[in-house]
Amino acid sequence: MALIVHKYGGTSMGSTERIRNVAKRVAKWARAGHQIVVVPSAMSGETNRLLGLAKELSPSKQDDAYARELDALAATGEQASSALLAIALQAEGMPAVSYAGWQVTIKTNSAFTKARIESIDDKRVRADLDAGKVVIITGFQGVDDGGNVTTLGRGGSDTSAVAIAAALKAHECLIYTDVDGVYTTDPRVVPEARRLATVSFEEMLEMASMGSKVLQIRSVEFAGKYKVPLRVLSSFTDWDIDINEEAKSGTLISFEEDEKMEQAIVSGIAFNRDEAKISVLGVPDTPGIAYQILGAVADANIEVDVIIQNISRDGKTDFSFTVNRNDCAKTVELLNTKVLPKLGAEDVISDTKICKVSIVGIGMRSHVGVASKMFRILSEEGINIQMISTSEIKTSVVIDEKYMELAVRALHKAFDLDQPV
Amino acid sequence: MALIVHKYGGTSMGSTERIRNVAKRVAKWARAGHQIVVVPSAMSGETNRLLGLAKELSPSKQDDAYARELDALAATGEQASSALLAIALQAEGMPAVSYAGWQVTIKTNSAFTKARIESIDDKRVRADLDAGKVVIITGFQGVDDGGNVTTLGRGGSDTSAVAIAAALKAHECLIYTDVDGVYTTDPRVVPEARRLATVSFEEMLEMASMGSKVLQIRSVEFAGKYKVPLRVLSSFTDWDIDINEEAKSGTLISFEEDEKMEQAIVSGIAFNRDEAKISVLGVPDTPGIAYQILGAVADANIEVDVIIQNISRDGKTDFSFTVNRNDCAKTVELLNTKVLPKLGAEDVISDTKICKVSIVGIGMRSHVGVASKMFRILSEEGINIQMISTSEIKTSVVIDEKYMELAVRALHKAFDLDQPV
Repeated sequence: MALIVHKYGGTSMGSTERIRNVAKRVAKWARAGHQIVVVPSAMSGETNRLLGLAKELSPSKQDDAYARELDALAATGEQASSALLAIALQAEGMPAVSYAGWQVTIKTNSAFTKARIESIDDKRVRADLDAGKVVIITGFQGVDDGGNVTTLGRGGSDTSAVAIAAALKAHECLIYTDVDGVYTTDPRVVPEARRLATVSFEEMLEMASMGSKVLQIRSVEFAGKYKVPLRVLSSFTDWDIDINEEAKSGTLISFEEDEKMEQAIVSGIAFNRDEAKISVLGVPDTPGIAYQILGAVADANIEVDVIIQNISRDGKTDFSFTVNRNDCAKTVELLNTKVLPKLGAEDVISDTKICKVSIVGIGMRSHVGVASKMFRILSEEGINIQMISTSEIKTSVVIDEKYMELAVRALHKAFDLDQPV
Repeated sequence: MALIVHKYGGTSMGSTERIRNVAKRVAKWARAGHQIVVVPSAMSGETNRLLGLAKELSPSKQDDAYARELDALAATGEQASSALLAIALQAEGMPAVSYAGWQVTIKTNSAFTKARIESIDDKRVRADLDAGKVVIITGFQGVDDGGNVTTLGRGGSDTSAVAIAAALKAHECLIYTDVDGVYTTDPRVVPEARRLATVSFEEMLEMASMGSKVLQIRSVEFAGKYKVPLRVLSSFTDWDIDINEEAKSGTLISFEEDEKMEQAIVSGIAFNRDEAKISVLGVPDTPGIAYQILGAVADANIEVDVIIQNISRDGKTDFSFTVNRNDCAKTVELLNTKVLPKLGAEDVISDTKICKVSIVGIGMRSHVGVASKMFRILSEEGINIQMISTSEIKTSVVIDEKYMELAVRALHKAFDLDQPV
């Protein structure tokens, strides 16, 4: 008997028929003797429907009061799907109870629309589990110190599931989704892409941060921090497949480097066209400029991804970074009004027509020449590289977004990812 | 400057366009210097949509765990519409904040799907009003001592609005709806029905309890208990009509009997085909039988309306009462399994094809022969009366539901309700 957290995405919860299948699957696990906590997303399309209504009513507002109401609105999607799943489980003869974030309690900070979990009280949940109930907890949301409903941002249900698994010291967190695992790259771009049976935590972190949409990055960070074993698997298999087979399916995100992983130098190609590039030009090269620029951006709760500062010439340098495209205009305005005057920089320019392509692999640590091979492949395809950023197990380039598919396919082939292991 | 509660029904909140009109109307009142608390219903169709999903998942379940989840589910409708209205008000430049029942806090008992309000904490609301904000509070719901979300039953938003008006000692509670006031009877059944400018609290109570769908009965009870002036008016007038004209429109539910009211003997004809008739036959006529029968029914949280016990013959009597049609099967089962064996009664029979028709009027107190005139009219139309129940200002009959329209039209005409006052 083990305590296991199941997380089901919006597509898996997309209709009453699918919710019934989720209920049957969960009941199967519970009847096998496990204690099960389920974290469901809103029914697919529901969050977009709700936010669409808000947009019709207020196309432009961006202040905190508005964000508070957006969260109160969006949170209802998961509350409804959680209650529906409880009802479906009860109909299967399985005792079940649903809790909203504020009922658990899942405490977050007050950064509406992108809040962060601060603590989870497991008392109520444990009591229900011990009483033989399946416990359903709304994903995506929590409550702040002021008693306001908060949401964790898009994909936040993954983070909720992992955080709950960590708080409950769960044996494993199963992320049921509409794909059957983590692939070497997106099969819609490269049909030859292969499913990985295991992937290291660090690789998954890089892939998630690169926009492989299987898992939200914060959920992987959480899993890493609290060593929560995480498995990505399909909710579209028959609900009554053998539970031992199901327990081994999908992709396991592993915290131990085994022999097999060492074999592949590059495990996957990740890409992302959700970002925009912003450059602050002609910055006087004095200590603290990175803080002056990015401190203001962080204070506005805008997440920064790639950051590049090159050597200075004539005492001046250019400072570039990428942010989510939705934050681009806001960031440029912030820099122009609050940062540029103080900094004495020349100009701020931005470009939203970019994409980021990365090769990720734990083997890159012990192999030289991997990055240069990447640059050669792109050059052979006539693709100009705008920014480069590297880490121990990843090399990313920012290129014109129109070359994205071309770059991903060429790299996938060049690093033999289309070949069986 | 006054503190005024506005309540908007589901039809008034039925689309973003309508929500925007509600926001403009509310902003008009706030800009005229009033402190405004708004209680919106869910967007029309939303509660039915949600409960429909639940029914697809579990057609038959009726236990408490199920009811708890139904409430968690249904409550999301008002949470969404409240947040949307806050967003619409902010878009109009009017500061606004929305609260769910648990955030206010609106405390209820734990009778899921038909909970009763126990207390309302007005601290947070008053602070926001004093800060110049419009405060939006979800109708229909609250939270129990265990931190579970509860709902007040269909039409519960009216009750929420009146309870909030009472707690805040509001100057008036305006119930905006899709009709422009209270009529002598339903104009869909009798086209000659007239709008009443004022109606006494007691008459309104009888009309509401008789199924005049304008106001939920518990809201009228609440208004009576706490002397909350209540006005029913249309939300489909132009939002920018003169505020003084708007403040006098619709029907005022009055707590003082004025001259005018005395003139009409019968103010309106109410009817209801939501009930079923249940008879316990051959009950030994001993003290306490009413308690033995109805105590068990009340314990199951089933509301009883008309109750008839006739004189006994041969030491036995028949005991009849009406309940909501939805509760009929449950009530019969309850009586058969728990009450009949103990009571030594002969049988339980039920009939769902009935309706109740009532004449209501404060003038009936001082006029004789009103009830007998009613019976004569029905007899002239060939309608058989199955049950009779009377109060000071009301006479109700239970008849075959197929005669309902005929009875209502005949009575409306016979009591001159189609004539101008």
